[in-house]
Amino acid sequence: MLPKAIEWMGDADCGFLRLLDQTKLPGRTAYLDCRDVQSVWEAIKRLSVRGAPAIGIAAAYGCVIAEQGGQFEAGADHLATSRPTAVNLFWAIERMKRVAPRSTATLLAEARAIHEEDAAMCRAIGEHALTLFQRRRQGARVLTHCNAGALATGGIGTATAPMYLAHERGLPLRVFADETRPLLQGARLTAYELAAAGIEVTVLCDDMAATVMRQKMVDLVIVGADRIAANGDAANKIGTYNLAVLAQHHGLPFYVAAPSSTFDLSIADESAIPIEQRDASEVLQTVSDTVSIGVFNPAFDVTPAALITAIITERGVIEPVNAERIRAMVASA
Amino acid sequence: MLPKAIEWMGDADCGFLRLLDQTKLPGRTAYLDCRDVQSVWEAIKRLSVRGAPAIGIAAAYGCVIAEQGGQFEAGADHLATSRPTAVNLFWAIERMKRVAPRSTATLLAEARAIHEEDAAMCRAIGEHALTLFQRRRQGARVLTHCNAGALATGGIGTATAPMYLAHERGLPLRVFADETRPLLQGARLTAYELAAAGIEVTVLCDDMAATVMRQKMVDLVIVGADRIAANGDAANKIGTYNLAVLAQHHGLPFYVAAPSSTFDLSIADESAIPIEQRDASEVLQTVSDTVSIGVFNPAFDVTPAALITAIITERGVIEPVNAERIRAMVASA
Repeated sequence: MLPKAIEWMGDADCGFLRLLDQTKLPGRTAYLDCRDVQSVWEAIKRLSVRGAPAIGIAAAYGCVIAEQGGQFEAGADHLATSRPTAVNLFWAIERMKRVAPRSTATLLAEARAIHEEDAAMCRAIGEHALTLFQRRRQGARVLTHCNAGALATGGIGTATAPMYLAHERGLPLRVFADETRPLLQGARLTAYELAAAGIEVTVLCDDMAATVMRQKMVDLVIVGADRIAANGDAANKIGTYNLAVLAQHHGLPFYVAAPSSTFDLSIADESAIPIEQRDASEVLQTVSDTVSIGVFNPAFDVTPAALITAIITERGVIEPVNAERIRAMVASA
Repeated sequence: MLPKAIEWMGDADCGFLRLLDQTKLPGRTAYLDCRDVQSVWEAIKRLSVRGAPAIGIAAAYGCVIAEQGGQFEAGADHLATSRPTAVNLFWAIERMKRVAPRSTATLLAEARAIHEEDAAMCRAIGEHALTLFQRRRQGARVLTHCNAGALATGGIGTATAPMYLAHERGLPLRVFADETRPLLQGARLTAYELAAAGIEVTVLCDDMAATVMRQKMVDLVIVGADRIAANGDAANKIGTYNLAVLAQHHGLPFYVAAPSSTFDLSIADESAIPIEQRDASEVLQTVSDTVSIGVFNPAFDVTPAALITAIITERGVIEPVNAERIRAMVASA
């Protein structure tokens, strides 16, 4: 029922990348057909395609388009400048650069492999996460933030993967979705995709999450991640750290679900994760021009490893979260 | 520079209540002229006038209008049904009912007295709060939520009172205003009124407050209250409890500023404070009709006394917050 977020149309030489324009959801199902590198770059920059895994997949297909134009290296490097925080973007582009011999056909095969592997990773993450959910005797009443869903990945999402699997298997499930200001990805995307699948979902404003926890309406929190440092500090959509503090205060487990490509072992801890600052107009649409008002609008925050109960990857669960266990998990590839 | 939120126009017999329509701010300065009880009731219900002290003042003037129409008791009782949580509404109406002899002139004098006393209380709260602010050596970098400002009271606000006084006196001051979903009173009202007064103010989305605290950009949190139970549990705009948990986690003081009329000693603790649930359409404007999505939209939350560093009233500071100190303060009248 959900439209495809990312799809390659046609063959390697003349094909193009079709992206669902997520800025128009849920009101309108519109597509962007990208036939040059710049249009892929803009789609990532403007959040038409968003979510760390989906950005990586879109950039991989963008590399095929760069090769079509005979400008592979320049195009790949340009795509890497579209957004600074999600490491999957750089990971996917590096992987495309290693393809040999390089042709549109071999590059398209690699991009498709990245796409399909991501779908398989989502299901694997979902299986591991579901095991954790079932530790809680009340069944899964889950709070999530932003959209780490099907729309953000090549499959059934990362944070949403256990929700789709629970629903498939008829397990009790109730989802609370933070609306996720300023861009409302929770209300616009997560609620939309889960409801489209028939999953019971309730939207709340971000400042209501504490009350939902205090009233014992949720059992756990699960979110995605854009980049995870070697010690487990995890960058994700702004507001994630807020939930981690609240979960600790209320004694609830706080889970991060992400493929292993999200780890950046070159970064020791959060201090080296670049945080994208976005435009003030995303926050303030309604303010009078007659007065001067400042705006704080970081796109991401970092949750320190100490607040994360477990990180759920396609290879298994990292719990407790520390540098040794992360290194062991990443090395297991 | 700020338009008057509440003003009685004309004399007792033929006058009317002029309310600034705060639902239109900051884009448009529009007024509602209320000449019957129902229009006052609707202005309160629809949040054209809002904030616990301002609701009480508006209801007091509404009682004069009820007397003009020869239906004092029925009108006063109807006004009391406009909103359930703020206790100042009931307090003001009870005070109007005790006026004797009852005439439009005596009632108008009482309503004006409530209005003027509120302005004096705001300044007194501001003085006490400023003393607390000055405990922090960095000067006051303040985070607030919703609008407990001039627009919510008959004076310079409750939570904002120390900000206006600090600004008057040239003391260092920086304000961060949560936008306050779903109705954005922080972005629309607090940022607007402070900026109009020349105070430096920065708006953030509610889910960014944790990051502002973690990055040590604020020294303290101050908010208003709609009803405070005998033990100090304080109901205020949804999102307040969220900030209280975050402030505790980050070692920041969390202050509640409210006139003594906000205390409801008939209520032992939070369990007896009614919380207004508002319409789902306030949260979700953008969701597709093709899928079914639930909404959680309480207008208020309750912060337990244990998370409140001090309650600042016009009579002084209650610190620590407990039933004994609250009883002593309220009895000091």
